[in-house]
Amino acid sequence: MKDDVNILILSCGTRNKIVQYFKRELLDKGSVIATDCSNLAPALYEADKHYIVPRMDDEGYIDVILSICKENNIKAVLSLIDPELSLLAQHKQSFLDIGTIPIVSGYETIELCFDKYKMYEFLIRSEIQTVKSYIEKEKFYSDVKIGVINYPVFVKPIKGSASINISKVTSKEEIELLFSRFDNLMIQEFMDGTEYGADVYIDMISSEPVAIFIKEKIKMRAGETDKSVSIKDERLFELIKKFVKETGFKGIIDIDIFNVNGEYFISEVNPRFGGGYPHAYESGVNVPSMIINNIDGKVNTNMIGQYDEDIYMMKYNEIKIRKEMKKVGGEL
Amino acid sequence: MKDDVNILILSCGTRNKIVQYFKRELLDKGSVIATDCSNLAPALYEADKHYIVPRMDDEGYIDVILSICKENNIKAVLSLIDPELSLLAQHKQSFLDIGTIPIVSGYETIELCFDKYKMYEFLIRSEIQTVKSYIEKEKFYSDVKIGVINYPVFVKPIKGSASINISKVTSKEEIELLFSRFDNLMIQEFMDGTEYGADVYIDMISSEPVAIFIKEKIKMRAGETDKSVSIKDERLFELIKKFVKETGFKGIIDIDIFNVNGEYFISEVNPRFGGGYPHAYESGVNVPSMIINNIDGKVNTNMIGQYDEDIYMMKYNEIKIRKEMKKVGGEL
Repeated sequence: MKDDVNILILSCGTRNKIVQYFKRELLDKGSVIATDCSNLAPALYEADKHYIVPRMDDEGYIDVILSICKENNIKAVLSLIDPELSLLAQHKQSFLDIGTIPIVSGYETIELCFDKYKMYEFLIRSEIQTVKSYIEKEKFYSDVKIGVINYPVFVKPIKGSASINISKVTSKEEIELLFSRFDNLMIQEFMDGTEYGADVYIDMISSEPVAIFIKEKIKMRAGETDKSVSIKDERLFELIKKFVKETGFKGIIDIDIFNVNGEYFISEVNPRFGGGYPHAYESGVNVPSMIINNIDGKVNTNMIGQYDEDIYMMKYNEIKIRKEMKKVGGEL
Repeated sequence: MKDDVNILILSCGTRNKIVQYFKRELLDKGSVIATDCSNLAPALYEADKHYIVPRMDDEGYIDVILSICKENNIKAVLSLIDPELSLLAQHKQSFLDIGTIPIVSGYETIELCFDKYKMYEFLIRSEIQTVKSYIEKEKFYSDVKIGVINYPVFVKPIKGSASINISKVTSKEEIELLFSRFDNLMIQEFMDGTEYGADVYIDMISSEPVAIFIKEKIKMRAGETDKSVSIKDERLFELIKKFVKETGFKGIIDIDIFNVNGEYFISEVNPRFGGGYPHAYESGVNVPSMIINNIDGKVNTNMIGQYDEDIYMMKYNEIKIRKEMKKVGGEL
């Protein structure tokens, strides 16, 4: 129906929980529609309706998405994977023209997140503590000599998500080997401290951060938080508020932070729902309902820090079973 | 009660599905009790009752487990992690003496699985095709020269589970670097083909393989099967039957197999429930019920191949939330 609050989740992949949460918050107010380029994306089968779409880099992809929006009277669209965020931001006006709000930050802000070295420079300019980074290995070697930085360090691609190709290295020999095998690498300080993740919602109407949930990462697995515990710290809330306002984020983002000897260092931002968001939701930080409020034209009230500390999250594997599927899509 | 079929699952970790399946099969016939050394093991909270126990390598660990068995009138015990399998096999008689059956293979068989090079030699002797392996790098270099093996190859620890420290290497230089940094490595041929996993149940009473479920691995993530599809092949069923009988396995095991140009190569065995077992269960290969039959003194009938082909399994993350836990156990 025309007034239904229908929400489209692009590249839903294995993010079943996100689809479930939107369905739970919408109830009979509207439907959740999901897309993926593979029919082996289990989150497709959580949605009220799903589409197998072309790969994002295919010509005409955005037209397919726009026509799904029109056909299903979609009020808001969001994506769960990085490269698609830039695409949504670039085509923001085309979505708005048909009455669909893209829940996403601006293009420049998104690009800043995907270039770890540019983000490093931005943070330095903004006088926010961050993780020492180098793209020139000679500069790094000379800083090692004068004791500004020490081994071990991480070598990782400047652009790239999760832990793909990240190596902890302990010698010049290994750095030379990695730089000779791969392009566009950077060297990053190894932070010997505690890692935090912050799920932050920046209201789409007021542009103010209205929710911040902080978790200490207890155990990682394949670049994802496997176990975490909720914590609160006014000083970190203030730092995050300053950072997200200077950067101009909108909607839901996920920030990685290190705590070394009580000092906070902002490391990276995923300008979308992070993999650990279910911890925030289950602790009462209800971003889907904030998004629905924004769609309804309502500004969210500030609820930063309104959750309990010492809530533990533990991930495990759940499975979806499907019979006799047609072989379609990128992953098959 | 005395006749209850109570089952103890040791080191349950994140294997929530295994605990759920046993509970579902037992219904009101008995209880599932779970242990782990960390209170952040989410599967603990699926069980009817759980215990946080010392680390497996702590002195007195086995006595703690034996007393849990006595206290809860446990009829069968199984473990979900590798190092504990040897321990269960070593103390088999102590468990049998108190009326608890360890669902596990014999000690020698388990040790064979954990030493990838010994398994390689065993398979060669048994004239079963396997993946070319080397522990002496000089022998490998000379085989490269005469064209018996080519780069890329995998370098991995001889003993070690999942993908810990596995590197795909393309040059002698990298092999030298890895061998200089780590001990007890082996070089293994890179198999350019399809990877299969087989979940096999060898009846604890008749010692006959009674169930085999084969899945083609479609996508891996962090050493685990993320997506798979069920397949059947009489030739592979026969090969697996021959292999498990020669090796003397008992209970539930998980076999990794490569298919290269229609030829099968057995690669590794986990002599326990594999991470992909939920695919078999959801396709009707009900190992928990076979274990319960064996506990009841019933021999299972052969049901090898009794499942449907083209059933797809897709994993995603589910979470458990716990409030205000005491900080106990190894992982905290």
